[in-house]
Amino acid sequence: MTAIGFIGLGVMGRPMAEHLVRAGHEVTVHNRSQDPVRALQSAGAKAGGSAADVAAGAEVVITMLPDSPDVEAVVLGDDGVLSAAPQGLLLIDMSTIRPDTARQVGEAARARGVRFLDAPVSGGEAGAKEATLSIMVGGDAGDFQAALPVLESLGRTIVHVGPVGAGQTVKAANQLIVAGTIELVSEAIVLLEAHGVDMAPAIEVLAGGLAGNQILERKAAGMLERRFDPGFRIDLHHKDLQIVQATARDAGVAIPVTALVAQLLVALRSLDRGSLDHSAILTLIEDLSGRGGPRPTAG
Amino acid sequence: MTAIGFIGLGVMGRPMAEHLVRAGHEVTVHNRSQDPVRALQSAGAKAGGSAADVAAGAEVVITMLPDSPDVEAVVLGDDGVLSAAPQGLLLIDMSTIRPDTARQVGEAARARGVRFLDAPVSGGEAGAKEATLSIMVGGDAGDFQAALPVLESLGRTIVHVGPVGAGQTVKAANQLIVAGTIELVSEAIVLLEAHGVDMAPAIEVLAGGLAGNQILERKAAGMLERRFDPGFRIDLHHKDLQIVQATARDAGVAIPVTALVAQLLVALRSLDRGSLDHSAILTLIEDLSGRGGPRPTAG
Amino acid sequence: MTAIGFIGLGVMGRPMAEHLVRAGHEVTVHNRSQDPVRALQSAGAKAGGSAADVAAGAEVVITMLPDSPDVEAVVLGDDGVLSAAPQGLLLIDMSTIRPDTARQVGEAARARGVRFLDAPVSGGEAGAKEATLSIMVGGDAGDFQAALPVLESLGRTIVHVGPVGAGQTVKAANQLIVAGTIELVSEAIVLLEAHGVDMAPAIEVLAGGLAGNQILERKAAGMLERRFDPGFRIDLHHKDLQIVQATARDAGVAIPVTALVAQLLVALRSLDRGSLDHSAILTLIEDLSGRGGPRPTAG
Amino acid sequence: MTAIGFIGLGVMGRPMAEHLVRAGHEVTVHNRSQDPVRALQSAGAKAGGSAADVAAGAEVVITMLPDSPDVEAVVLGDDGVLSAAPQGLLLIDMSTIRPDTARQVGEAARARGVRFLDAPVSGGEAGAKEATLSIMVGGDAGDFQAALPVLESLGRTIVHVGPVGAGQTVKAANQLIVAGTIELVSEAIVLLEAHGVDMAPAIEVLAGGLAGNQILERKAAGMLERRFDPGFRIDLHHKDLQIVQATARDAGVAIPVTALVAQLLVALRSLDRGSLDHSAILTLIEDLSGRGGPRPTAG
Repeated sequence: MTAIGFIGLGVMGRPMAEHLVRAGHEVTVHNRSQDPVRALQSAGAKAGGSAADVAAGAEVVITMLPDSPDVEAVVLGDDGVLSAAPQGLLLIDMSTIRPDTARQVGEAARARGVRFLDAPVSGGEAGAKEATLSIMVGGDAGDFQAALPVLESLGRTIVHVGPVGAGQTVKAANQLIVAGTIELVSEAIVLLEAHGVDMAPAIEVLAGGLAGNQILERKAAGMLERRFDPGFRIDLHHKDLQIVQATARDAGVAIPVTALVAQLLVALRSLDRGSLDHSAILTLIEDLSGRGGPRPTAG
Repeated sequence: MTAIGFIGLGVMGRPMAEHLVRAGHEVTVHNRSQDPVRALQSAGAKAGGSAADVAAGAEVVITMLPDSPDVEAVVLGDDGVLSAAPQGLLLIDMSTIRPDTARQVGEAARARGVRFLDAPVSGGEAGAKEATLSIMVGGDAGDFQAALPVLESLGRTIVHVGPVGAGQTVKAANQLIVAGTIELVSEAIVLLEAHGVDMAPAIEVLAGGLAGNQILERKAAGMLERRFDPGFRIDLHHKDLQIVQATARDAGVAIPVTALVAQLLVALRSLDRGSLDHSAILTLIEDLSGRGGPRPTAG
Repeated sequence: MTAIGFIGLGVMGRPMAEHLVRAGHEVTVHNRSQDPVRALQSAGAKAGGSAADVAAGAEVVITMLPDSPDVEAVVLGDDGVLSAAPQGLLLIDMSTIRPDTARQVGEAARARGVRFLDAPVSGGEAGAKEATLSIMVGGDAGDFQAALPVLESLGRTIVHVGPVGAGQTVKAANQLIVAGTIELVSEAIVLLEAHGVDMAPAIEVLAGGLAGNQILERKAAGMLERRFDPGFRIDLHHKDLQIVQATARDAGVAIPVTALVAQLLVALRSLDRGSLDHSAILTLIEDLSGRGGPRPTAG
Repeated sequence: MTAIGFIGLGVMGRPMAEHLVRAGHEVTVHNRSQDPVRALQSAGAKAGGSAADVAAGAEVVITMLPDSPDVEAVVLGDDGVLSAAPQGLLLIDMSTIRPDTARQVGEAARARGVRFLDAPVSGGEAGAKEATLSIMVGGDAGDFQAALPVLESLGRTIVHVGPVGAGQTVKAANQLIVAGTIELVSEAIVLLEAHGVDMAPAIEVLAGGLAGNQILERKAAGMLERRFDPGFRIDLHHKDLQIVQATARDAGVAIPVTALVAQLLVALRSLDRGSLDHSAILTLIEDLSGRGGPRPTAG
């Protein structure tokens, strides 16, 4: 049993914190809005009045927040985690943020005697609820080993991919591939429909060969029916591709195709489709092919 | 047992014809160069002196040729299949060609009382040898049923995807996705390497989530070691993307990302890498990121 | 005074033929539809019943036709120019066609003892009417000199740019730059408008510096007012970019930006804007930025 | 005669400050390194020990600095311009920075009773020396009028393009068009050379028609000879395209072609060509077309 502070009870964070309670840990939670805090209290967690409060008595603190500035504020700010962290605390940030922000936060933590791991996840809301997340972890090998018993309550594939920041870099690569693959599948679907191909067997045979991918497996059926209820919103994928582009620019890596895909996401947001699932990239390829009808915008 | 004519004994065609012999069919083969013909004769096939010759006594003719003009010549030319085809012959073209060429050949066949299916494959040389090809078939449903017993000796996933031409359109979509996915995986690999990420666990976790695809499963290990022995050559994928682009243009479908990927293949050919495996798209992203060393060119 | 045959009395060809009549040449014209033929007869030209007819008594034949297949038919076909051409005839094709078609036609001409120049023009309908066209000529230097007195009745800038086909290659480069520049100016305009910049002085200062170009000079004012009456239609520029792409592919030249611009033209045609002026590329950038209103389609 | 403070005596700033001295103004300069300060003192200027020092007695302060953070530090920092600015001071920032930074600095200035204009320039080192710069000015119309007598000593085309920030937005649009046009001219040159066209007359005819632009006029000759001495360095244009992309993203404007051009600049920097003139984009298109030889890198 570990004393765990958990900060950030959003769509992802709330079921994750519940799994930790259920696994028998002593969990103290903190969140800006109080509804999810009360829900966690009913489940057996304690509530902390601030990030500092949560950190004070913890062995492990987990943060699960929307974006880089949120993590900076919660960890580095007045009344933040580091302001009250006991020596040797293990801080695990599971948010998706910029790798360079992760490294800066890691530096600040180390200077305060706090161990830091960046441990972003993939698998979405379903993965959080079913504790089947993939977790990509950057940091010291010893800290990774120390975190494993806790992380195993949250995910299924948990890998150590390098020093602090490496977890976020792998997450960036993940989002690069996912957005690009949705785009490719969209081009393929519009091409096939335009030529009158029978779509169900076509998707089946594509999924079964070297073109096979998880977008064909999990998303294509919804795309064929133009169901774009999120899932993972275009707004969020747009944010993640900004991280990808900054990460590539920092290292002088050319990503010509991803730069173009990022422009398509800019267009989708400007067309008021930012709240749709990212598989709605399909609608833009349709529009550009003169095959779009009236468009749903986000509810 | 069916009387089958088989034309085109290249890297793919030769093992396919052998499977048909082994399955007990009466196979007559034709090929420009004679070495593979003799090999098939040893295996139990007969040799035909021309395409017409092969077609004359056949119930089914299969063509497996490099490109659209080859199919036109062998089927429509003097001494071609249609010049000698018996009424009701079932002609199955398994080459990868332009969908509009497939439709033209199909029209000409019908006018001569010959049934026609376009049935391109994916799965490569290994799939041909192991009879595990995926086969995407366009044509009449009745003709598809008639062809199934023969095609089942050649592949594992055999689907009917629409009228004549639909098989080639699905193959085009397949090649679109494969080239684009190699490109995305290349961008991801260069990005990860540039940031010092541990590559083996990174690839593992990417392959296990929504970013998962067959390029990560089958090609990434070779890419990490810069092994680019073909496989499927860049020259051939370049040809296939020309088909993709023509097919999209004919239908007014915009394929912005694939148009860009096609330019990368143009560059790779101009850089003398056309004989490398298509996974060598990685080398171009490396070059553009200032991370390329001296380059292997095709042997 | 020269005996000139002129084939192709479209929007461009008709005023060009009139200039030649006015310059005192003995002009025989041919055209599929008869209205422009009668107009030229009123102006003093003679009418020929076929391309062969026109060629039979000519010293110079000029062709001004829509596309590559038209030139092939009129020059190489039965009853075509070469079927009746006197030895030493100077054939000048002023159409915009593929450079490789120009070379093939040039070969066929030479084999028949006919001299050939490819001499496409820029400057549009206005340039044709005012005889201020730019003419880019490929062929032998001697043939160029022989053609100059005739061409000087049609244009102002007349340059010899290399062997047969070079004229068409320069025209392709011209169309590449024009389409791309319209695209760049479109991105700039939408960016400036989105930020509330005063457009008239902004365009003025852009036009006056290193960003200065003829699109800003001649087209930007109409673009700011969303006037897209052609001018040069998107459909035609789309055709020309197909020529550009084939010409680049033949030489292994990578044109990543133009390949992307070509996709935007595909989209504009699919969106039923093919009859608008090419400056309507602006409307697509607007749409992609969520700033488009209802769209005019071609009348 | 106006009391002018001038901060930033780099390649651009030094000749600009000299023009102001020569025009009879009372100029006090400040710069990190002291050599240019001494040169200006010889020319008749006074030296100020800090930005605050320079601002204290001035009617007008001009800043000409490398990047957004420099302007923030010099204007907003301890001992910065605003810390000592007299009421009603007119602060003119002529650096190229982000439009949103210009707006933030403008807000801070107004809060301190200081009038602010953003007034970036185009025309480069030559324009600065010859006082022929183009100056694009954002801010209040009254402030623009007040600044005109001073700006007229520095440039020839001086336009008011909107509120604070508008000057920087127009500069961003300028850099967007310039980079893209160099790219298009590069594609055209490689295409023409690959086909053996005579380059001098080809460039002449392109420059004379609708494809005409200032890159063809001023840069193409150097590009044909592969002379890439800067001029304007790729490193700086890369920085400016980052500003362009941020400015577009803020407004939800899609700039697909510029996003791709920006990737080419990333590649050129990674290939160690960042110190070459921006016209060296040509070398990348050459490389991608297999026509590059050994490459000069920056000295």
